[in-house]
Amino acid sequence: METCSALEKKGFEVTYLPVYEEGIVKVEDLKSAIKEETILITIMHANNEIGTIQPIAEIGKIAKENNIKFHSDAVQSVGKIPVDVNELNVDLLSISSHKIYGPKGVGALYIRKRTRLEPILYGGGQEKDLSPGTENVAGIVGLGEACRLAKEELDENIPYITNLRNKLIDGILNSVEKSYINGDIEKRLPGNVNFRFTGIEGESLVLMLDAKGIDGSTGSACSSKKLTASHVLKAIGLEDVDSHGSLRLTIGPENTEEEVNTVIKEIPPIVEKLRSMSSIWEKEESLLKNNTKRCDID
Amino acid sequence: METCSALEKKGFEVTYLPVYEEGIVKVEDLKSAIKEETILITIMHANNEIGTIQPIAEIGKIAKENNIKFHSDAVQSVGKIPVDVNELNVDLLSISSHKIYGPKGVGALYIRKRTRLEPILYGGGQEKDLSPGTENVAGIVGLGEACRLAKEELDENIPYITNLRNKLIDGILNSVEKSYINGDIEKRLPGNVNFRFTGIEGESLVLMLDAKGIDGSTGSACSSKKLTASHVLKAIGLEDVDSHGSLRLTIGPENTEEEVNTVIKEIPPIVEKLRSMSSIWEKEESLLKNNTKRCDID
Repeated sequence: METCSALEKKGFEVTYLPVYEEGIVKVEDLKSAIKEETILITIMHANNEIGTIQPIAEIGKIAKENNIKFHSDAVQSVGKIPVDVNELNVDLLSISSHKIYGPKGVGALYIRKRTRLEPILYGGGQEKDLSPGTENVAGIVGLGEACRLAKEELDENIPYITNLRNKLIDGILNSVEKSYINGDIEKRLPGNVNFRFTGIEGESLVLMLDAKGIDGSTGSACSSKKLTASHVLKAIGLEDVDSHGSLRLTIGPENTEEEVNTVIKEIPPIVEKLRSMSSIWEKEESLLKNNTKRCDID
Repeated sequence: METCSALEKKGFEVTYLPVYEEGIVKVEDLKSAIKEETILITIMHANNEIGTIQPIAEIGKIAKENNIKFHSDAVQSVGKIPVDVNELNVDLLSISSHKIYGPKGVGALYIRKRTRLEPILYGGGQEKDLSPGTENVAGIVGLGEACRLAKEELDENIPYITNLRNKLIDGILNSVEKSYINGDIEKRLPGNVNFRFTGIEGESLVLMLDAKGIDGSTGSACSSKKLTASHVLKAIGLEDVDSHGSLRLTIGPENTEEEVNTVIKEIPPIVEKLRSMSSIWEKEESLLKNNTKRCDID
């Protein structure tokens, strides 16, 4: 959002596409949003908070047909699912090293031939003038090695992580009433879980899980200092109160079934405790009771 | 230069100050360049090619008096000479890690209180929205440690390096005719040497020194792939032919007197060899001979 408002500041017109309850862009929406003067489409491959995977290959095809440059932020998807710039039909694709266990402070931008870019920063002229400053060679080598390892382990990691993720989801949804998954359940990254628990404050849940050695978050790590509702959860139509009751957990290749079982065991009593102190939950419960009573009368 | 043309692209008016033969900005020039609408003065502390040190403290005082924000690029000076943001009267000061033996890919910007900046990049909102992206913590810690070590060793390094530097300069100027130092000889970084040898091609000199295990450059490392004359050497009034005959050598705390003696021994025969193949030098020599002849006649 912020990147785009920077474009708007520079005088560009930006069309924002809706993502609906599933957190996924509709190709039809994209098609009808294209104007004669559209020069760029940029859609993230997978979302950082709810893990939903966008139909990048299809969008890329449309972009190509309309002769529009297409960028995808693949920071969340590289190393988690197969990413092939040709299959995805992208002209530009962003990668971040630390998201695939590489060193922090390094990233890569895939640039398809005949895609001309203007620099944002100026100086030494490195990387064909696009990225000035002495190259962080050690970091770049680290990113390369992280990519190699990620690719090598991908086929093994995907089913392993997906299995753990599904266990975690089933375990929680079955044991905590009024618990939900944010975003499409199928079209999402193998390791991403984003729960929503009615009537609780996610930040308190995160703190209490932290005390048990379980790391989670309510929104993105970047905005962890802000207490405003996640713009991603807002975009999938959640009210502020529901956004605040959300919990993101991510499963990686080094997590074990035992750890997942621990999380399944720890979350329900914490949610119950938080709900016992929650005025929202109290209201919710009395609503439930009243509904039940009415049913009795009927 | 390129940074400023980026400002000009955005519609700002930029005044470039001359640096004369010594490679140093004149405070009087700066004073008369200030206009009512001047909002920023930016002058590098020490030059990366010729090592000349600018009168930053004086300029900062003038900036302060005129209520103009003052930035200095101290990438070359930090760790080489004392740098105190208060003594220098700067509002903004840039530092680069790898220039003081810290890890590559890390830098720092000192920002004086009540100096408001607009971001150039947008995203995660880290560093109070000024530097988005997950922080390279290891790199930042490395920069901090490099600063600590640089400060600790500064008092010892300055006289040691200055002494080696002066030995190198004296050794070469005394043994190679028509050799000069580019930039002010006093107001320069302890470790910087920038020779100029009439009638030779610096790039060839660099290659031949490289074969002897001596690393030098003609311009900045950033533009080492470009064969155009250094804009710094142009700015101190050198003709292209003289810029191309320049050689930058840098002495650090790990260099030894023995190494300096090797350089003093190796350079003169290489310069002589290059001159023997140089049409410019041939012309220069015949000019010298003709002058001598005329003297004889007189």
